Amino acid sequence: MRISELSRRSGVPNATIKYYLREGLLPPGRATAQTQAEYDDSHLRRLRLIRALTGVRGLSVAAAKQVLDTIAEEDQTDTHHVLGLVFGVWPSGSSKPETADGQVPVECPETDALVDAMGWTVSTYNPARQVIDRTLETLRSLGMEQDWRSLLPYAELAARTARLDLDQLETLKDPLEKAERAVLLTFVLEPALMALRRLAQEDESIVRYGESPSLAALQPGRRRADEHE
Amino acid sequence: MRISELSRRSGVPNATIKYYLREGLLPPGRATAQTQAEYDDSHLRRLRLIRALTGVRGLSVAAAKQVLDTIAEEDQTDTHHVLGLVFGVWPSGSSKPETADGQVPVECPETDALVDAMGWTVSTYNPARQVIDRTLETLRSLGMEQDWRSLLPYAELAARTARLDLDQLETLKDPLEKAERAVLLTFVLEPALMALRRLAQEDESIVRYGESPSLAALQPGRRRADEHE
Repeated sequence: MRISELSRRSGVPNATIKYYLREGLLPPGRATAQTQAEYDDSHLRRLRLIRALTGVRGLSVAAAKQVLDTIAEEDQTDTHHVLGLVFGVWPSGSSKPETADGQVPVECPETDALVDAMGWTVSTYNPARQVIDRTLETLRSLGMEQDWRSLLPYAELAARTARLDLDQLETLKDPLEKAERAVLLTFVLEPALMALRRLAQEDESIVRYGESPSLAALQPGRRRADEHE
Repeated sequence: MRISELSRRSGVPNATIKYYLREGLLPPGRATAQTQAEYDDSHLRRLRLIRALTGVRGLSVAAAKQVLDTIAEEDQTDTHHVLGLVFGVWPSGSSKPETADGQVPVECPETDALVDAMGWTVSTYNPARQVIDRTLETLRSLGMEQDWRSLLPYAELAARTARLDLDQLETLKDPLEKAERAVLLTFVLEPALMALRRLAQEDESIVRYGESPSLAALQPGRRRADEHE
């Protein structure tokens, strides 16, 4: 297909596609004339993945390129590896741990103990490791006595969440499509999962401490429907 | 105690305490002389809460003041309400939904359906509601067929997570202390919970798709210890 059709089918503007081509995020099409090239479905899939990485969770174009390059270097039929690369990417928006450029794994003794206790297999280069050690440090500096053991019940729930995540990838055949879906599920779903926790916290708080009259007044829903004129 | 001792015991610099006093985040001490005031434990607790709201999760001083003011206006013995206020605050760092300034609840039909199905009681002003409807819209715009039903198993796990959260507040008596702890648990723990999910995803990916040789090479740990010299 021509670039115009690629644009139409992907929903990505012509100029943006050209920018991705210049930056090397999208491989060049098959040249059919001096100024024309043919693109195929692999370009379409790749565009969707770029869109997922940049548009959805706000990775910079440079960071997205790094992910794509790494995926491209690997055997794409190795699903676990493709997924591992995607899962290992930390979103630029959040507190970003240093990535293992120098390939020196950071010491994360508490995470290691937790991972061990859970029986998990986790690469020492997974940037999520550092987040856990740092969070525990922060909590302790704020006067909470927490160590990795206090995270064990949370880890158990995280394992179940991960199973739900991977379930949703099972039906997809193409590894790049799996990667795209994994990006969406991991990054896009994150705020919704944290939002679910907040809603559940409010409900659990009501269950334990009772509903305050002032808060009840803030809940139209069924209660207020009864009083409705 | 004098401001210098308040500073020492809270770990908050003198100048910062004075700034909080000027901005009204911290109520004035009891004046003992023209330029001296006495502070007590309530100031210390309040300072820790301010530190949790601003330092920990990066709420602006203005946003923190809003939370503190609202807590102050309420009956502080009403634990659920204090917690509700804290849980309802959306961190300034993340994609912040409009808060209910005008007291007009935003329509979130999918969240409402989900909350209903879960049997939760949630204020229509909980800003987390909007996050869920928006996330589902985003996922659909990216070609994933998702509606609130696909979030039900995640909501079930969120409910368990919330129970763990509230368990950790049970032992605390003072509502302001509970509020402080709730802020820490909700905001500070968030990155760690998402990190646990990423670690669990990597492990689950290995369980399902097998360990790739290239990734195994990235895992010193036990495996490499065997090969060591």
